[in-house]
Amino acid sequence: MVEGVHFRLGDGWATPAEVGHRALAGALSDLAAMGASAGEAYLMLGIPPTFGHERALQLARAAAALAEQTGVAILGGDVVRAPVLTVSVTAVGWADSAEELVGRDGAAVGDLVGVTGVLGSAGAALAVAEGRTQRSAHARTVSERAARPLPRLQEGRELARGGVHAMIDLSDGLATDAQRLAQASEVAIEVQLGALPIAAGVAETAAELDQPPWQLAACGGEDYELCFCAAAEDAAAVELAVAALGDVRVSWIGEVREGPAGALHLLDEHSQQVSLAGFEHRV
Amino acid sequence: MVEGVHFRLGDGWATPAEVGHRALAGALSDLAAMGASAGEAYLMLGIPPTFGHERALQLARAAAALAEQTGVAILGGDVVRAPVLTVSVTAVGWADSAEELVGRDGAAVGDLVGVTGVLGSAGAALAVAEGRTQRSAHARTVSERAARPLPRLQEGRELARGGVHAMIDLSDGLATDAQRLAQASEVAIEVQLGALPIAAGVAETAAELDQPPWQLAACGGEDYELCFCAAAEDAAAVELAVAALGDVRVSWIGEVREGPAGALHLLDEHSQQVSLAGFEHRV
Repeated sequence: MVEGVHFRLGDGWATPAEVGHRALAGALSDLAAMGASAGEAYLMLGIPPTFGHERALQLARAAAALAEQTGVAILGGDVVRAPVLTVSVTAVGWADSAEELVGRDGAAVGDLVGVTGVLGSAGAALAVAEGRTQRSAHARTVSERAARPLPRLQEGRELARGGVHAMIDLSDGLATDAQRLAQASEVAIEVQLGALPIAAGVAETAAELDQPPWQLAACGGEDYELCFCAAAEDAAAVELAVAALGDVRVSWIGEVREGPAGALHLLDEHSQQVSLAGFEHRV
Repeated sequence: MVEGVHFRLGDGWATPAEVGHRALAGALSDLAAMGASAGEAYLMLGIPPTFGHERALQLARAAAALAEQTGVAILGGDVVRAPVLTVSVTAVGWADSAEELVGRDGAAVGDLVGVTGVLGSAGAALAVAEGRTQRSAHARTVSERAARPLPRLQEGRELARGGVHAMIDLSDGLATDAQRLAQASEVAIEVQLGALPIAAGVAETAAELDQPPWQLAACGGEDYELCFCAAAEDAAAVELAVAALGDVRVSWIGEVREGPAGALHLLDEHSQQVSLAGFEHRV
């Protein structure tokens, strides 16, 4: 994660602690998406001369706190000078055998498409940070959630055990990441935008932006929920297995179709296909 | 490794391929210094918009070539946008047990201090790149050697098996790194500067700079040789074990002494202590 590319620092933007948390969360989320257990992580910091000792410690401590919360050991790393704050995390995941892991390429025609948790906080928080909305109570709600996303490690393992065919984490937004699943699996994916689970505060933020809430949910990056394809007969078991872990729920948002590889069809509440042209994607 | 901090690109400076090689070499050298076997590596690239596809490929291919040469598997990584070229490598090393590994803290009073290979190429190459010397034949010799340092993985394993008490790789220069050994081991280290093994072309470069050759050998960083402390009775066996691997030789350059922890005494050919004040250290 590079300052000015993946985050900005300063008033209304990310704190050093949030950058540390998000850098580790992003790496762990990739492991979650394979159903891997997270093992050890390595933290490399590029620190600009003006950044200072105390903020560097805040960043490292936040990463250490998330590591403890997720059972990860930060075993090493490096600190160097850099023109802008640069955080590179390597996280190593484990499985007892390669068969336990899930790739992006196993989605089959007829599979249901599911997501964990709720979407849109990251996209809404970006709009808030950029000053495109009021700084109201719901703005705080979306920003707080987006500041500390939790990688879905346990959920990823349960989904893998439950036999999902393909999985990805939502780091670049559902519209982009579901398309990657479709591409790798050589299928088309159809998503019902009205079925997207919307995080608290996102609908209000979307209203201020004069957008439908699904736009923030489908196009905002870094929600770090999981998107997966499962056989319809496994759907109930998968739901239960994830629900047994805690507060995170599975929502079924679409279906895998025959069609040109990588095609993603986004359908509105009238089953009309929506174009993504003109939508904002987080860089 | 960050452009402008750890390397410069362009005429007379590093090529993209050399940056890729050196980034992996530096990470592997840390494993060599513990006597670990190198396993897998992860390569993260931060690429400025002007860098271009072809140069990024040259960088990655050079890292891949060194990985193949050293038996390392590059298993993953990431590519992001960054304001300057930034290369972060995580390399994971292995040993059958913790006891097989060597730290920096085991040097004992009376130990001999040794180094592998020859020193000074990196310091001399920096002087050449900065235009402080002629671009002559010996300038090419030091620059070519410095451009592609080889991590001493096999030598590090043999030294660990041979029972060396403490070890470090020379990434910041002997004067800095030997002091780290002395600090961690809570001893003093005495180095005979006349005993330093000098790489080809370094003496000529030093003469042009009006410096003694040992200055480039002791103060230049990134030679990536190993510096270690061994019991005198193990010295012959250690020499033989390293020599059996190939062309790299061990040189004995000093001794571990009682004294204030972290003291480093550099002695010239008249056994006079030399001060490092005013010496150039590579940043």
